[in-house]
Amino acid sequence: MRVIIIGGVAGGMSAATRLRRLDETAEIIVIEQGDHVSFANCGLPYYVGGVIADRDALLLQTPASLRSRFELDVRTGHRAVAIDRDARTVSIQDLSTGHVTDEHYDHVVLATGAVPRDALASAEGGPVVSTLRTIDDVDRITLALADLPEAGRAVVAGGGFIGLEAVENLVHRGLAVTLVQHGGHPLSPLDPEMASLVVDELTTRGVDLRTHSSVELLDADGVHLDDGTVVAADIVIDARGVRPAASLAVDAGLALGPTGGIAVDALQRTDDPRILAVGDGVEKIDALSDEPTLVTMAGLANRHGRTAADAIAAAEGLLEAAPADAVPTLGTAIVGVFGLAVAMTGWSEKRLRDAGRAHRVIHAHPSDHAGYYPGAERLSMKLLVDPATDLILGAQVIGRRGADKRIDVIATAMHAGLTASQLSRLELAYAPQFGSAKDPVNMLGYIADNAATGLTDSIQWHEVDDAVAAGATVIDVRTAAEHAAGAIDGALNIPVDDLRAHLGRLPAGELIVHCQVGQRGHTAVRLLRQHGRSARNLDGGYLTWSAGTRMLAASRPSMKEPA
Amino acid sequence: MRVIIIGGVAGGMSAATRLRRLDETAEIIVIEQGDHVSFANCGLPYYVGGVIADRDALLLQTPASLRSRFELDVRTGHRAVAIDRDARTVSIQDLSTGHVTDEHYDHVVLATGAVPRDALASAEGGPVVSTLRTIDDVDRITLALADLPEAGRAVVAGGGFIGLEAVENLVHRGLAVTLVQHGGHPLSPLDPEMASLVVDELTTRGVDLRTHSSVELLDADGVHLDDGTVVAADIVIDARGVRPAASLAVDAGLALGPTGGIAVDALQRTDDPRILAVGDGVEKIDALSDEPTLVTMAGLANRHGRTAADAIAAAEGLLEAAPADAVPTLGTAIVGVFGLAVAMTGWSEKRLRDAGRAHRVIHAHPSDHAGYYPGAERLSMKLLVDPATDLILGAQVIGRRGADKRIDVIATAMHAGLTASQLSRLELAYAPQFGSAKDPVNMLGYIADNAATGLTDSIQWHEVDDAVAAGATVIDVRTAAEHAAGAIDGALNIPVDDLRAHLGRLPAGELIVHCQVGQRGHTAVRLLRQHGRSARNLDGGYLTWSAGTRMLAASRPSMKEPA
Repeated sequence: MRVIIIGGVAGGMSAATRLRRLDETAEIIVIEQGDHVSFANCGLPYYVGGVIADRDALLLQTPASLRSRFELDVRTGHRAVAIDRDARTVSIQDLSTGHVTDEHYDHVVLATGAVPRDALASAEGGPVVSTLRTIDDVDRITLALADLPEAGRAVVAGGGFIGLEAVENLVHRGLAVTLVQHGGHPLSPLDPEMASLVVDELTTRGVDLRTHSSVELLDADGVHLDDGTVVAADIVIDARGVRPAASLAVDAGLALGPTGGIAVDALQRTDDPRILAVGDGVEKIDALSDEPTLVTMAGLANRHGRTAADAIAAAEGLLEAAPADAVPTLGTAIVGVFGLAVAMTGWSEKRLRDAGRAHRVIHAHPSDHAGYYPGAERLSMKLLVDPATDLILGAQVIGRRGADKRIDVIATAMHAGLTASQLSRLELAYAPQFGSAKDPVNMLGYIADNAATGLTDSIQWHEVDDAVAAGATVIDVRTAAEHAAGAIDGALNIPVDDLRAHLGRLPAGELIVHCQVGQRGHTAVRLLRQHGRSARNLDGGYLTWSAGTRMLAASRPSMKEPA
Repeated sequence: MRVIIIGGVAGGMSAATRLRRLDETAEIIVIEQGDHVSFANCGLPYYVGGVIADRDALLLQTPASLRSRFELDVRTGHRAVAIDRDARTVSIQDLSTGHVTDEHYDHVVLATGAVPRDALASAEGGPVVSTLRTIDDVDRITLALADLPEAGRAVVAGGGFIGLEAVENLVHRGLAVTLVQHGGHPLSPLDPEMASLVVDELTTRGVDLRTHSSVELLDADGVHLDDGTVVAADIVIDARGVRPAASLAVDAGLALGPTGGIAVDALQRTDDPRILAVGDGVEKIDALSDEPTLVTMAGLANRHGRTAADAIAAAEGLLEAAPADAVPTLGTAIVGVFGLAVAMTGWSEKRLRDAGRAHRVIHAHPSDHAGYYPGAERLSMKLLVDPATDLILGAQVIGRRGADKRIDVIATAMHAGLTASQLSRLELAYAPQFGSAKDPVNMLGYIADNAATGLTDSIQWHEVDDAVAAGATVIDVRTAAEHAAGAIDGALNIPVDDLRAHLGRLPAGELIVHCQVGQRGHTAVRLLRQHGRSARNLDGGYLTWSAGTRMLAASRPSMKEPA
């Protein structure tokens, strides 16, 4: 059996090594157009920042090491230019000589990845421009950085995962950084009141954030934005997003899906069962909608590479057990932003609303570990719940410690089909330096349970204005000192501990109760409802409300200040 | 409705506050024999060590704060001395006056906790001795420590969670510490090859560890052990384990279970439905055996306190939804040992073996995050799997970073009934500072999948000697340098990358292949099996083998050196 794997990084290399472990006799050829295979692409921004000091650390394997351990025929500097499905050949060009040879195959794995949607080009005398996706890219960037004067200036176009990592690492290297973001905030999969924390962090670190903006032109003056401003820059990182690299598949007559990614079945087979495809070039199935989606994550690429190898081995009769279908994707992701971890899984509120899907929203701000043990840091958590089934639809967790743990637990619960209320029942490891007797994830479950059983009713930060306009009164149950430090306009301050004594002071009509994070508000709402009052708890308390309203104000295009 | 809650810490206080939120009108009396309620008992060792500097940080609530927020009638310094179930009264003694009053109840919640199995007493001139369970205990201990000379000496009796936390914190305060452990190693829920890492850590930190020992007597000479040695000591912490504080229940004629804990149903009701019980005094149901068990964890106490409140409210017709049954326990736990986190859930191999329950064992030693990103630390992981169903039976994870996250994900998977192989399919958050594209939990899943599908076969560290005696040959597929640094006696060193070239050199018969952690061994086993050889991979590699054999040697009573 001869297998040609096109693309030698995450998904392709997982397929190649798994296949070797399944079949000692297969001839396995790996074609890679770059000079490197199996490099640490997720580490590239940190090499730029000097956090990863040794370039060799990025090169996990070499053609020689893969030859000796896995007997792979790795051909770097070669590009697959065409697939002849009738002849079962791949035409492979040696990029150093231009020479093309045809190689016969029994199976092909396409792991061609993704490419930038369009490329930014710099004019003569303009800033250096580069994407941040390959070893060649980081070589180009580090060379340019080495040539810079003391106070270098960088523009990063695009505030996604790689864009934010580029921002952090360029700041870390001492550059003045401007982040140009098409939408209203970086990290578009986040909801605005959560993204607000990311914006705060970027601002605190001195990043010049330009939202509702895009790069039009690079020339000797710098970076021209679509609002007419010009940002001086020595270097520009183009992190504006990617599309599947599917031209080889298209030219071979293979079907793409509605997203533009290569369409595959649950065993990663294209519509030609001898050609499989994995990684960023391929459509995944969304776990919540069962519809095709594009998610460009290394974990999925690796897992699907393994699935492809299993499918090939099964087709050759080498497996006793039938290979497992690829799992639909939740889109779990995390990114570090200057020590803040920003993690997410499933759908955002925005996406649910756009899809017209019913959802219940829960915010909480517990400490990552017991508050009485030193070093506790606040987490900001958001859970999206299906009100009919109580199933978890998505989550966002942001914090300096422990955000990764909580998103992983929630992603596991979603994978397993646990309900939101069941999160309260998870038996998680507790000692005071690691969590709380009621872990933050348990707390989300308790709040969900109180909502599902009708024990409480909440109102979201963006619904307060309308409720007040309709006659509701906002009651701030925090202490007088907390109230004085910042409050919702028109709120009446009655600390929760005084509430029973002051029931007579409360105005008629609906009451919107809030505290700092939502917990005292819950106690107050229970109290008020039992005294016959209509009361709702402001979900996530003042913290969520202020983050949301701050973001709303900042992200209105009309509010944008000229540079 | 009048509810008397006996015990004002974790479980009792959770019941009290939840009940108030469910019923604004109930009269809720909390009886606490100590001077403090709702204190941070899990923080006590760290206050002793000075890590938590402020004593007030331990006092989460006061009777006054609970009165004002929750209208609780909290009576500290009072003891419930009897329950008259016919009269529905609790006899309550004011410990300052000795005066006893009878209070009528509609419902009682017993949250009486646990007490030391037997008390150590010191003779005149002997060391100060104390348990480490209450504010009074830490006041006594810190007072004694303040009086000590420069080089104080402490003995900790019992190497469970509190014992180990006591050891760490006393070392942190500069004392020379001896740990006296009844069994062969501290943390008896761990298997020996995992406990070996804890022993290494204790030894590195200068702790004098005495296994297979117990304290017989304290006098002016110090601590007399049962092997006749005497350890000089200024202070002794008695952390030898507890039993349920069930005498009040017994005197009231309530049933205990086979473990000696108060027997309760799934709504925490004793055999008298007006009397509920929660916390360390109560039996739990083991999630794996469905049998009664004792697990003394704060998280369970809190959760069951809430269940008890729900059950009372439901009995009074106050709840719309039926209360949820208490969840059987996995026994998830974690303890810090000098920066090493030691986490576990479910059953150990030892316990499975003792119960005659079939199990498959998996060890792995992945890094907590991508090796190319600075600060990666090795995790030592163990997974116990039901070979018939592939369900997860237990896990142990030890490491300096990320152990808590992995045990929480596995505990969530167990709660949800995921199989071990499904761990490979979890979509966990990855960026290089947080994990790996194949997370350590995914890796366990891949290994489990390879075992479940018959792709590989492994041998455990303690089975090697027998296999070699039966004629097998051990092949070390690590590099020559790794082999030279420490190897299994008689092993033949053929690096995995040279294996194909040296197939002819291999002796006949079964081959036991090993590398450092198990990964190269897997590749080698796949290679050898496809070349027709019978080969098994040494699970967990040299690391697990050496940890296990080291522990085995150290924990043999005959090997114990006299002091």
